Amino acid sequence: MKAIVVEPPTRGVTVKDININISTLANDEVLIKTIATGICGTDRGIVSGLLKFSRPPVGKKELILGHEGLGQVIELGSEVKGLRKGDYVVPIVRRGCGKCSNCLVGRQDFCETGEFVEAGIRGLDGFMREYFIDKERYLVKIPDEIRDIAVLLEPLSNVVKAYNELMFCQRRMIWWCNDGSYNCRNVAIIGSGPIGNLFAMIFISQGFNVYILNKRDPSPTESFIAEKIGATFINTLKGLTLTKLDLIVDTSGHPMAFIPLINKLNKNGAVILFGTTGEEYATLTADLVTFLVENNILIFGSVNASKEDFENGVNFLSIWKSRFQTVLNKMITKVVKPDESESILTKKPAGEIKTIISWV
Amino acid sequence: MKAIVVEPPTRGVTVKDININISTLANDEVLIKTIATGICGTDRGIVSGLLKFSRPPVGKKELILGHEGLGQVIELGSEVKGLRKGDYVVPIVRRGCGKCSNCLVGRQDFCETGEFVEAGIRGLDGFMREYFIDKERYLVKIPDEIRDIAVLLEPLSNVVKAYNELMFCQRRMIWWCNDGSYNCRNVAIIGSGPIGNLFAMIFISQGFNVYILNKRDPSPTESFIAEKIGATFINTLKGLTLTKLDLIVDTSGHPMAFIPLINKLNKNGAVILFGTTGEEYATLTADLVTFLVENNILIFGSVNASKEDFENGVNFLSIWKSRFQTVLNKMITKVVKPDESESILTKKPAGEIKTIISWV
Amino acid sequence: MKAIVVEPPTRGVTVKDININISTLANDEVLIKTIATGICGTDRGIVSGLLKFSRPPVGKKELILGHEGLGQVIELGSEVKGLRKGDYVVPIVRRGCGKCSNCLVGRQDFCETGEFVEAGIRGLDGFMREYFIDKERYLVKIPDEIRDIAVLLEPLSNVVKAYNELMFCQRRMIWWCNDGSYNCRNVAIIGSGPIGNLFAMIFISQGFNVYILNKRDPSPTESFIAEKIGATFINTLKGLTLTKLDLIVDTSGHPMAFIPLINKLNKNGAVILFGTTGEEYATLTADLVTFLVENNILIFGSVNASKEDFENGVNFLSIWKSRFQTVLNKMITKVVKPDESESILTKKPAGEIKTIISWV
Amino acid sequence: MKAIVVEPPTRGVTVKDININISTLANDEVLIKTIATGICGTDRGIVSGLLKFSRPPVGKKELILGHEGLGQVIELGSEVKGLRKGDYVVPIVRRGCGKCSNCLVGRQDFCETGEFVEAGIRGLDGFMREYFIDKERYLVKIPDEIRDIAVLLEPLSNVVKAYNELMFCQRRMIWWCNDGSYNCRNVAIIGSGPIGNLFAMIFISQGFNVYILNKRDPSPTESFIAEKIGATFINTLKGLTLTKLDLIVDTSGHPMAFIPLINKLNKNGAVILFGTTGEEYATLTADLVTFLVENNILIFGSVNASKEDFENGVNFLSIWKSRFQTVLNKMITKVVKPDESESILTKKPAGEIKTIISWV
Repeated sequence: MKAIVVEPPTRGVTVKDININISTLANDEVLIKTIATGICGTDRGIVSGLLKFSRPPVGKKELILGHEGLGQVIELGSEVKGLRKGDYVVPIVRRGCGKCSNCLVGRQDFCETGEFVEAGIRGLDGFMREYFIDKERYLVKIPDEIRDIAVLLEPLSNVVKAYNELMFCQRRMIWWCNDGSYNCRNVAIIGSGPIGNLFAMIFISQGFNVYILNKRDPSPTESFIAEKIGATFINTLKGLTLTKLDLIVDTSGHPMAFIPLINKLNKNGAVILFGTTGEEYATLTADLVTFLVENNILIFGSVNASKEDFENGVNFLSIWKSRFQTVLNKMITKVVKPDESESILTKKPAGEIKTIISWV
Repeated sequence: MKAIVVEPPTRGVTVKDININISTLANDEVLIKTIATGICGTDRGIVSGLLKFSRPPVGKKELILGHEGLGQVIELGSEVKGLRKGDYVVPIVRRGCGKCSNCLVGRQDFCETGEFVEAGIRGLDGFMREYFIDKERYLVKIPDEIRDIAVLLEPLSNVVKAYNELMFCQRRMIWWCNDGSYNCRNVAIIGSGPIGNLFAMIFISQGFNVYILNKRDPSPTESFIAEKIGATFINTLKGLTLTKLDLIVDTSGHPMAFIPLINKLNKNGAVILFGTTGEEYATLTADLVTFLVENNILIFGSVNASKEDFENGVNFLSIWKSRFQTVLNKMITKVVKPDESESILTKKPAGEIKTIISWV
Repeated sequence: MKAIVVEPPTRGVTVKDININISTLANDEVLIKTIATGICGTDRGIVSGLLKFSRPPVGKKELILGHEGLGQVIELGSEVKGLRKGDYVVPIVRRGCGKCSNCLVGRQDFCETGEFVEAGIRGLDGFMREYFIDKERYLVKIPDEIRDIAVLLEPLSNVVKAYNELMFCQRRMIWWCNDGSYNCRNVAIIGSGPIGNLFAMIFISQGFNVYILNKRDPSPTESFIAEKIGATFINTLKGLTLTKLDLIVDTSGHPMAFIPLINKLNKNGAVILFGTTGEEYATLTADLVTFLVENNILIFGSVNASKEDFENGVNFLSIWKSRFQTVLNKMITKVVKPDESESILTKKPAGEIKTIISWV
Repeated sequence: MKAIVVEPPTRGVTVKDININISTLANDEVLIKTIATGICGTDRGIVSGLLKFSRPPVGKKELILGHEGLGQVIELGSEVKGLRKGDYVVPIVRRGCGKCSNCLVGRQDFCETGEFVEAGIRGLDGFMREYFIDKERYLVKIPDEIRDIAVLLEPLSNVVKAYNELMFCQRRMIWWCNDGSYNCRNVAIIGSGPIGNLFAMIFISQGFNVYILNKRDPSPTESFIAEKIGATFINTLKGLTLTKLDLIVDTSGHPMAFIPLINKLNKNGAVILFGTTGEEYATLTADLVTFLVENNILIFGSVNASKEDFENGVNFLSIWKSRFQTVLNKMITKVVKPDESESILTKKPAGEIKTIISWV
């Protein structure tokens, strides 16, 4: 079958025919025809050879790329009970180490040993191929109403995990407003890519006031999205009039980005750090650390997601589909065929929010 | 204007014209035209004179009935910022005592003093009238996609509160399944009224397996709902083959109902008690109490909801609207005009899931 | 060596010489000389043949009794790092099933499969013998200052677990008083045995007001304890003037005991159920269930404890030793030699709070 | 009476006679004779004029210094119920704004408005004087066994708050070890002053392995304390062989201190930031932020404490008094009279852990 293959840590990517046996299924396995795969910075990092932790499966030289998958069930193992032929599914990415407490109980997103594998990233082949076999326990069923946008579920799952962690930790004190809602809380999201927009939607859906920040004016699509979901897009080069923030979410990929905003945080405020790829650095002063202390500020990094986060992500997609109509579709700014994917995996197209590869 | 009026604790209900000044608004107030009001057991309990805690506003003899409201914004006070003319809104029911810690921070659903008032129930006029004025802080904005079913939000809010409390308390241990989801957990919901069905939908949306129990076969509408949402309806008179439950939700109104199911609970299982009106009694044996102890069983009663629960309820309605299409509409089994409401408030119509009064 | 042996479910107990090889230790094992073992209702239930779940180790007919142990380290396996010869240790009782999520992460007190074993109770020999071998992971080190009372640690661990679970669940709302303490909260503890007194001390140490209830006047020792720790002993036969409770802890062993107190609970109040052995029954009325619902009441049963609970128990013993001096020693109302233990295991002596067997 | 007085933001401190009326008490007030007051970096920061947020009570020019107090009850207002003449008490420091949700419910340590006052620091006279009057709700009763070390309660309360917040947030995943304890977790505490040592004791009491770090060899007193409590003192200038940390607590007062240790953190690890006074700065690189993200690292600043934290601090002092005997007394490295306090408030004496002023 056709597949998109890399050889980390070597730079480069190839679309080629590979030979994978899909004729036999274990009892708990499912054969899935790939419908679509999303492309994100991690994929391009692997292709560019810069993402140091990427590696092929043990004993192999090649890694099939792709961790943002969407497929359709073709065949079922004899003990698979929760899925039927024709169902759409999204596979989770990380598979636990089988050793640490968190992995043993299905929370491999908090794996402690680091001995997990991640499909399309490290130690496990990914979903950029025509078919793949996976265990039922790693598959999330997609309801019909969101089939067209379910390729966004994997990036969304990471956003859901970070959101849930925030809300759990903030119960350290009373964070809701005095009417029992979150309507008084202001969130600044740095970055207007797919992750930034998904964070924006999740916080808006929970009643927060959301500001999306970037160092430029919004593209027409970004303007459309912000207006439709009820967020405010701010070009920070034109000045930042926000004075009272309760939460900063840094999705920008630049470690300097959140630092200048921190002193705008209200007491008990929080910062979510979500992925960085830059080579920049920032200065941390005594005054800033004192500010964190004096104001009970919480900062945490968040990576990956549990199956529960994927399932909650399904629910969020349904909400947004019916509430914001085409917004999620508009986030898919480009669709390419596998044979066109090399260039798209090498260079981010202008105006991209999310590019996907269609396999059907 | 036309209003539905009771004189608790006296039996009876009247539809009549009342004189309420709606010409002036305080800065934080909103004038609302009533669109629809739902009828529940509490309303009928007040009308029958059996609900002892119902009372009119201080200094009055009459109480305007109605706590399940849906209305449209007609006029805004000068400081109202989050609403516009034409918006649909649902008012929250309980207004805090202004004294206890929970009320002071917007969690009047956990009021400790009992000195709260509840619209249409105790101490505050309700929404069964053509217009009402309310403060913005008590109003929940309804997105367009669920206008036709938003009259279900108030009952749903109570379900959301109970659900959130359950999930919070169950973090006392590891309750998710070994794949990180709740797919291995079985919920038995006793009762197939509106509350039972809303509980069913919320647990199904979070990945639980749901069984709806009643002492009879389902009506065609109940069959339709159960099948559409993916729940199993069980007529317990024909035998209960369920052997492993993780949660019992008793919405039946009969205190005996949950008792015989308790010993089917898995270790660490839970029971949610939600409203009773019966006059029955059950026997609690030493063996049953020992079972609770030996198995770390959690039981809690739940009443009312916070504004956050209403806002989460809005999200659930959007999910279900797009996922289950007409299911929520089918739950509205009858729509009457205010002038027809006396009979419907006195006697539950056959096959009722939810009856509503349309004011437009 | 000398050991106290039962043959569940057969009635009876024997003190006799048994042959156990203690000459070789695995790398993670410790040889322990028994110092003291406590006797509780569970032991007498096994001896009387009434405790149905007691069973010997697989393939054996006899079970060595004893789950409340205290011993001194004699020999160490080669990989034992946290203990030295001469250290005092208390073994934990339950050993996990090795299958369910809770057991896999060291929380066997929440075992879901029920396939755990418990030393001296089911499937594993207990500590009523001169020496025993155990793995380091099951041993809790005892600091010097509480050696004389550390035999109380095992019963205390169960109290700590229930306390921690209560405090976790009560964060569902704001339960502390408006000065940020628990000084406004009233706890009624039913039963004045060792468990009742340990609950009293734990709640007093956290600032609660504590009432110890029994259906008789206190013994001189009970009066001494209550006065010394700052609790109030109430003979409920003389009338119960308490009107506002926030928590009921039922340690009485009678399922009827907590029922008449429930309607004295404040809103958001809780009930901890802790062990019952009676054959009685109580009536649960619709009014009572409605009370649970209308007031957000939480009820839970609690059994067993984690290693963390044992370690927190060590800290509580240190607090109480220095704050209440001889109170904990006074709780040990009788000390017998192994040869005298048959009668004491068959019949509870008058005035007993805790009887222990001294092995040295 | 004699008092120690400052005029923030002016540099300097004076011991002088002031005229305060202590002849009348409101019903909820208590007259207290000061026994001892502790001196900390905040006091010296005020005296040096560097602590910018210090200010006198509204309408006054002078501020009585002192927030670490210990006193004895002399007279009681008519409605004071929880205290008696002769009782030892420690006053809490911060008094809430009376407006925000956290202050309204007794959690002024999470005040959101910043309009709180703090005794001896900002807007409220402190305890460095012979007598003071305070409301019962702000007083924590001291049991007899810790009278001699209770002057340490105020600094300890801040440590307890940070500890409780950490343990709450870390329930975001499974952080206990696979035996259910914290025996596998390593804590590095930067700084060996009073706060560092109190953090060390609290984590050791909960089963953690504790390392106390400084850039020099320990003083004889520091060696004594570390050995007695079971911590390891590490001179980081001689190299840091620690490779696996689960928690870093930075009490050093230097913002650079924790940065080089972060990459030694295990996945899911945490950093507690606790006070800084330096003027230094550190560099935050993209790699470090990526490390936070990839490993789910949590960082939070913590300030102040609730009354519950003070009450738990009382319990910890009792544990440590009986377990570590003279360790806490040894932490009081110097006792001076009020008349000698000017020099001690201006310059930190060599070898100081905690200096106190004795008022009796």
